[in-house]
Amino acid sequence: MSEEVRSNEAVETLDGWYCLHDFRSIDWSAWKTLSSDERQEAIHEFLNLLEKWSAVEKDQQGSHALYTIVGQKADLMIMILRPTMEELNEIETEFNKTKLAEYTSPAYSYVSVVELSSYVGGGNDEDPYQNPYIRSRLYPILPKSKYVCFYPMDKRRQGNDNWYMLPMEERRSLMRSHGLIGRKYGDKVKQIITGSVGFDDWEWGVTLFSDDVLQFKKLVYEMRFDEVSARYGEFGSFFVGNILHPEKIAAFLHV
Amino acid sequence: MSEEVRSNEAVETLDGWYCLHDFRSIDWSAWKTLSSDERQEAIHEFLNLLEKWSAVEKDQQGSHALYTIVGQKADLMIMILRPTMEELNEIETEFNKTKLAEYTSPAYSYVSVVELSSYVGGGNDEDPYQNPYIRSRLYPILPKSKYVCFYPMDKRRQGNDNWYMLPMEERRSLMRSHGLIGRKYGDKVKQIITGSVGFDDWEWGVTLFSDDVLQFKKLVYEMRFDEVSARYGEFGSFFVGNILHPEKIAAFLHV
Amino acid sequence: MSEEVRSNEAVETLDGWYCLHDFRSIDWSAWKTLSSDERQEAIHEFLNLLEKWSAVEKDQQGSHALYTIVGQKADLMIMILRPTMEELNEIETEFNKTKLAEYTSPAYSYVSVVELSSYVGGGNDEDPYQNPYIRSRLYPILPKSKYVCFYPMDKRRQGNDNWYMLPMEERRSLMRSHGLIGRKYGDKVKQIITGSVGFDDWEWGVTLFSDDVLQFKKLVYEMRFDEVSARYGEFGSFFVGNILHPEKIAAFLHV
Amino acid sequence: MSEEVRSNEAVETLDGWYCLHDFRSIDWSAWKTLSSDERQEAIHEFLNLLEKWSAVEKDQQGSHALYTIVGQKADLMIMILRPTMEELNEIETEFNKTKLAEYTSPAYSYVSVVELSSYVGGGNDEDPYQNPYIRSRLYPILPKSKYVCFYPMDKRRQGNDNWYMLPMEERRSLMRSHGLIGRKYGDKVKQIITGSVGFDDWEWGVTLFSDDVLQFKKLVYEMRFDEVSARYGEFGSFFVGNILHPEKIAAFLHV
Amino acid sequence: MSEEVRSNEAVETLDGWYCLHDFRSIDWSAWKTLSSDERQEAIHEFLNLLEKWSAVEKDQQGSHALYTIVGQKADLMIMILRPTMEELNEIETEFNKTKLAEYTSPAYSYVSVVELSSYVGGGNDEDPYQNPYIRSRLYPILPKSKYVCFYPMDKRRQGNDNWYMLPMEERRSLMRSHGLIGRKYGDKVKQIITGSVGFDDWEWGVTLFSDDVLQFKKLVYEMRFDEVSARYGEFGSFFVGNILHPEKIAAFLHV
Repeated sequence: MSEEVRSNEAVETLDGWYCLHDFRSIDWSAWKTLSSDERQEAIHEFLNLLEKWSAVEKDQQGSHALYTIVGQKADLMIMILRPTMEELNEIETEFNKTKLAEYTSPAYSYVSVVELSSYVGGGNDEDPYQNPYIRSRLYPILPKSKYVCFYPMDKRRQGNDNWYMLPMEERRSLMRSHGLIGRKYGDKVKQIITGSVGFDDWEWGVTLFSDDVLQFKKLVYEMRFDEVSARYGEFGSFFVGNILHPEKIAAFLHV
Repeated sequence: MSEEVRSNEAVETLDGWYCLHDFRSIDWSAWKTLSSDERQEAIHEFLNLLEKWSAVEKDQQGSHALYTIVGQKADLMIMILRPTMEELNEIETEFNKTKLAEYTSPAYSYVSVVELSSYVGGGNDEDPYQNPYIRSRLYPILPKSKYVCFYPMDKRRQGNDNWYMLPMEERRSLMRSHGLIGRKYGDKVKQIITGSVGFDDWEWGVTLFSDDVLQFKKLVYEMRFDEVSARYGEFGSFFVGNILHPEKIAAFLHV
Repeated sequence: MSEEVRSNEAVETLDGWYCLHDFRSIDWSAWKTLSSDERQEAIHEFLNLLEKWSAVEKDQQGSHALYTIVGQKADLMIMILRPTMEELNEIETEFNKTKLAEYTSPAYSYVSVVELSSYVGGGNDEDPYQNPYIRSRLYPILPKSKYVCFYPMDKRRQGNDNWYMLPMEERRSLMRSHGLIGRKYGDKVKQIITGSVGFDDWEWGVTLFSDDVLQFKKLVYEMRFDEVSARYGEFGSFFVGNILHPEKIAAFLHV
Repeated sequence: MSEEVRSNEAVETLDGWYCLHDFRSIDWSAWKTLSSDERQEAIHEFLNLLEKWSAVEKDQQGSHALYTIVGQKADLMIMILRPTMEELNEIETEFNKTKLAEYTSPAYSYVSVVELSSYVGGGNDEDPYQNPYIRSRLYPILPKSKYVCFYPMDKRRQGNDNWYMLPMEERRSLMRSHGLIGRKYGDKVKQIITGSVGFDDWEWGVTLFSDDVLQFKKLVYEMRFDEVSARYGEFGSFFVGNILHPEKIAAFLHV
Repeated sequence: MSEEVRSNEAVETLDGWYCLHDFRSIDWSAWKTLSSDERQEAIHEFLNLLEKWSAVEKDQQGSHALYTIVGQKADLMIMILRPTMEELNEIETEFNKTKLAEYTSPAYSYVSVVELSSYVGGGNDEDPYQNPYIRSRLYPILPKSKYVCFYPMDKRRQGNDNWYMLPMEERRSLMRSHGLIGRKYGDKVKQIITGSVGFDDWEWGVTLFSDDVLQFKKLVYEMRFDEVSARYGEFGSFFVGNILHPEKIAAFLHV
């Protein structure tokens, strides 16, 4: 890409693994109509799938997370990271063909790619994709935190509050102070930003992990008073959930 | 959290029990297909669940409320308060596995946490979480009032009406006069504010309890002329309902 | 309520009977699967319910109306007025348990209370709830007009068009000229305003009755050019219907 | 109506036949489960209905049109014009009771009345309802054009773009130039405007007929640059379809 | 069309083949209930349909593409180009009558026509519909790229950001710089613009093809900082997918 033609407003991004958030609701009534053996078989098949995903994770070829969602929006969230869009599609389809999937219905999904923006830092000649720290953030192994929070968001383009019309310098400065809030919570909340421009209906997905669920509220609320969110943030649905360890799945699905 | 980095705009909150509002619609046609014995069994199982919740309430380890909702939005509202997000999820799942739940469908739900803001009062060195009055508000036993009203809301961020861009002092002053209206109705309406930033799609849930249903209208309408609501309030769906005492459940479900 | 604390912006309302608009769609395919006898039985049961409601109306303890709705939004509208919110809930539940209800699905509903605002008139010391004319408007017997029109509405709170930020005097003056249009149609259109702040998703429901369906269009269109609607009106869905006299129900449901 | 009280802003309309646009989706899977004889019977019954409507049309007591819709929004559009709202309701109900209707589901509907506004022309003392040209437009026989386009629309009431706050003279002048675009396409596109204030969710329905489907795009696109649409137009869903002649129905429904 | 009457604001378009984007979700549970033979038969029937479409494509009488969609919005996207609206309707109906279609449900669709605007270039006297380069763009054979991205969009008409009120010269100049971004990606991303004014709910559909899925994000994100998108773009849902070659269909549908 020649620098001359390039619109000088756009920020560069670094992009890592592709990401699918797959939210499902369980049809408990139908699930109960199965015999105990059939249910065990369905659970067993799902556990096998999880083991396969764990092997991929061990090989650093992707990562995944499984949470139960509080409230009626969904019962389960499966979050999948993989090097290609094809793998996301295959995993989704493989799950769709399982016995368990017959007893779930789609509740929400989100397609994106792990993203680092160059608003903050950067500037030297090094290839960032070779930098180990950056690699660890582009290809992250998802933590086994007790809680997850997911929401999609846009930067606003409305009247005088139009993020995309701001000069790069102003955006950079706003993002810097915004980042400070995130960093304050760095010990307590792990944050994964995935970009979805061109992939899904919002511009970013935000996935937060923590062992203290209240920190989600504190972080998001404090950020809302920051100009980046206050003037320029548009937010989609929020999902909050509790980790579902593989060894707890049978109990969760026991009826 | 060091005071230096902290955005000086954000207000501190005190957070108590986690809260799930669970609205359900009854599938009366399917319910009628059950034999009278099966229906009794389902009712009995549900009453047992309520008794278990009552025991928790007696131990001050949570609270709950059960109301029938007027109109087609839902037939039942179960409101649950518990110390952890996991317990909300467990209760929701336990209900989902009951016989009665097979004859209901999800209508709406809301995930939040009981919240007190520090706009009004505060200021001394005492640990507020040790203050008995504050504790009674963070960990409230829900009243058995005849009527309930629930609605979620946001503070507006739109053009010149952007709550989150107002200086703290202005927000505090606006909230103070807003609070006066609420206090005027204090004898007649008990108000529980739950915060849901990071947990659900709106920023707060408002649950009102009263023995005079008209007071909900009077209170919300009077507040709407107050600048906090008039300029800065965005409101979701309103639900209004009548208390459903455990001893009335069998009659309510009799077909 | 002491005048000192009271926000001087809010207008007082007089509130009468509680009101449920219950819109239903008929599942004609399922209805046809019944035997002729079963259908007669279902119709008979519904007619009995209507007779019970008519007895209440005769005793001036409430009122009701039954209309068929044009277009796919609904097939039937039942409008019910009663002194308490509990009665609305009981009637709704009683209908839900009928045989006919098994062959309908909920299409829309609205919960409100008959309301008179004090923008116009008032001012003397008389208790308005004892005034026979006011009583006849707060506790109205619904007319048996050929046509009905229902829509919910809000007063706008948007940028410079914020009804709730206007001084009382300006609101009063605007409402006065608005009322003149309504009065012009007084001979042809009977208008029932029900307030729903705190009860349902919009602030008011408007129900119009007429023997000339075109007058609904003329009235609403003329009002739309009046500043109260033009600048401050937000409108929900419009429903229009034809009266369904009890003696026509069997024919309407004949398949 | 005395001219004195009348708001001088509102424009007078002439109103003709009532109009129902009824969009349906076909449940092909269920349709296939019928025996060939049953399908023939259902088609026959529907053709009989169409013949009855054609007789009404021949008597100039109404008109109708039948089109297949492209894309998933609907499979069929039935457009019906009749002198009364009751007839629309009866026709809708009669169709709902047919065998074919069991294999369709409601997709969208629109209730309105053929409307001519007096922005352009008028002014003499003649009763317009006696003018043969005006009568032909208020009570139109729908053309058998190859293509149809339907969309509902509003005039905007938003900030500085508030149609209903414009003086009559400005509205009249804007509508005049708007009308010129429509007239340019007069040879190629027949346009039927139906008013729906008080009857349905938008203020007007626009139905276009043409033998060249591309003219819909050219006309609507050119109008969009005209101030009436550019600043004051709000548009609902667009439906485009191909004519379904009665003699093609059996082939269309053949499975 | 005489130049005198013509609104001088509107831009001329060149219009090619009509286009249907047809998104479907697969009902895997129902699909599994078929016998292996029945599934083979359904797949075979669908492959025959594809072969028929391929023959049309070979004859340059249309084109089509088949992709699997990532996430829950849909499982399959069929994109069809044909010379007439009738053919789109016939193809859609023919697919609806297949065995496979019984195991899919409609997820989204879009009706439009391949469009070239005359903002850029043009100006000589040549008939553009005879120009081979222009013909290749109006009647394009869709590439077999690994990835597809589809989204509908509008030009904004909101307060000061009203595209349709801008003078032609300003629109032309804005579109020219916008086009430069697209051209920068010309090697990597093939872009097909289809116009849908008068045909569907948005004004344009954008379909992108690439062998590098990340280029969709880079292109759309860079454009978002360009004034045409930043101030004047409104976007619908984004769909992203992987190519489904006919020889992979059996494996994709294997359960």
